[in-house]
Amino acid sequence: MAYRETEKMRKRKAEARQRIIDCTYECVTEGGFRSARITRIAGLAEVATGTIYRHFESREDLFAEVFRLATEKEITKVTEALNTPGNAAERLEAALRQFSERALRGPVMAWSLLAEPVDPKVEEERLAYRKAYADLFEKTIRHGIEEGCIPEQNARQSSTCLVGAIAESLVGPLSPTHTNQTTNKNDPLVDAIIRFCMQGLTGTRR
Amino acid sequence: MAYRETEKMRKRKAEARQRIIDCTYECVTEGGFRSARITRIAGLAEVATGTIYRHFESREDLFAEVFRLATEKEITKVTEALNTPGNAAERLEAALRQFSERALRGPVMAWSLLAEPVDPKVEEERLAYRKAYADLFEKTIRHGIEEGCIPEQNARQSSTCLVGAIAESLVGPLSPTHTNQTTNKNDPLVDAIIRFCMQGLTGTRR
Repeated sequence: MAYRETEKMRKRKAEARQRIIDCTYECVTEGGFRSARITRIAGLAEVATGTIYRHFESREDLFAEVFRLATEKEITKVTEALNTPGNAAERLEAALRQFSERALRGPVMAWSLLAEPVDPKVEEERLAYRKAYADLFEKTIRHGIEEGCIPEQNARQSSTCLVGAIAESLVGPLSPTHTNQTTNKNDPLVDAIIRFCMQGLTGTRR
Repeated sequence: MAYRETEKMRKRKAEARQRIIDCTYECVTEGGFRSARITRIAGLAEVATGTIYRHFESREDLFAEVFRLATEKEITKVTEALNTPGNAAERLEAALRQFSERALRGPVMAWSLLAEPVDPKVEEERLAYRKAYADLFEKTIRHGIEEGCIPEQNARQSSTCLVGAIAESLVGPLSPTHTNQTTNKNDPLVDAIIRFCMQGLTGTRR
């Protein structure tokens, strides 16, 4: 009996933890980390605020966890785009487009992941997140150099430039203070980002 | 008499404020914002910790002020490089080199300005700082388009890509966890950054 009680409690605890994460995720999607106040999350998850702190050492730890989950999703999408048919340059372009368009379609979450001023713990996750993209792009640039569709270069360095150029380009348009967020006007923006990036990589005018 | 007393007090207060700023600046130059603890700053500035809070509402406000001062210095340097002789493309290249080389020569401060996870208030200053660079680069790209040395493009968008590419490229090498920080090995890094950026801008292989 004692064993089954413990199992049940464990399950209940895991469910509460998941609910806290889901509700925080929801808050961030709607209004960024700034809107994810502990009292609000507790209300949505139907737990006491104290319960949140039994599952997460601090608000920052909870945020860092939500940040990780959200970025895993994005990284999966970019990985998928990098695995579509085509040569390495074409696949890279598809991935850059995928990343930019997804960000512009979900601007609040994208802004929170890319640039929202949060806590140092989230900032650390953010650096890891950018590194993950750089790793993916680097691999594809190397393929491109082998295939001959991308000229010889320092693949690591160029992949880092790509990540920086895209992220910085999106920070402005995604920002909550930016007025024009209609999706169908974003095509020229995405095209301009991709043009710069692909020219940077290949040195060929587009 | 009362008037002179007040003047004297004002002067003393202003001096204390300046000393607090200078000592914080010094701490950040040596070990980043993380090393700038209030007790340490108070010790260096020879004031009580309470005095610091009479001058600055919070640690974050003090940091934001120091951040602003440090970035003003950097922006002045880049502006100088943008005003050297040469066509717009050459001046931009000089400015990118100036920025990168200065950062690599003062890696702790540069890392603190570009990427050290600090507080939301500093993050906001950081976004403003990057926008200031984008403004400078944009103006020069426009000149370049007029002069004909840079092809027609969305100057704002490209300047943002430049800022992102450089900043992201430097974050890794400047990071305190990065092992190889010797200055004379940085030339290939700076060259690779500039190559990507200038190719991105001009679409001409270098």
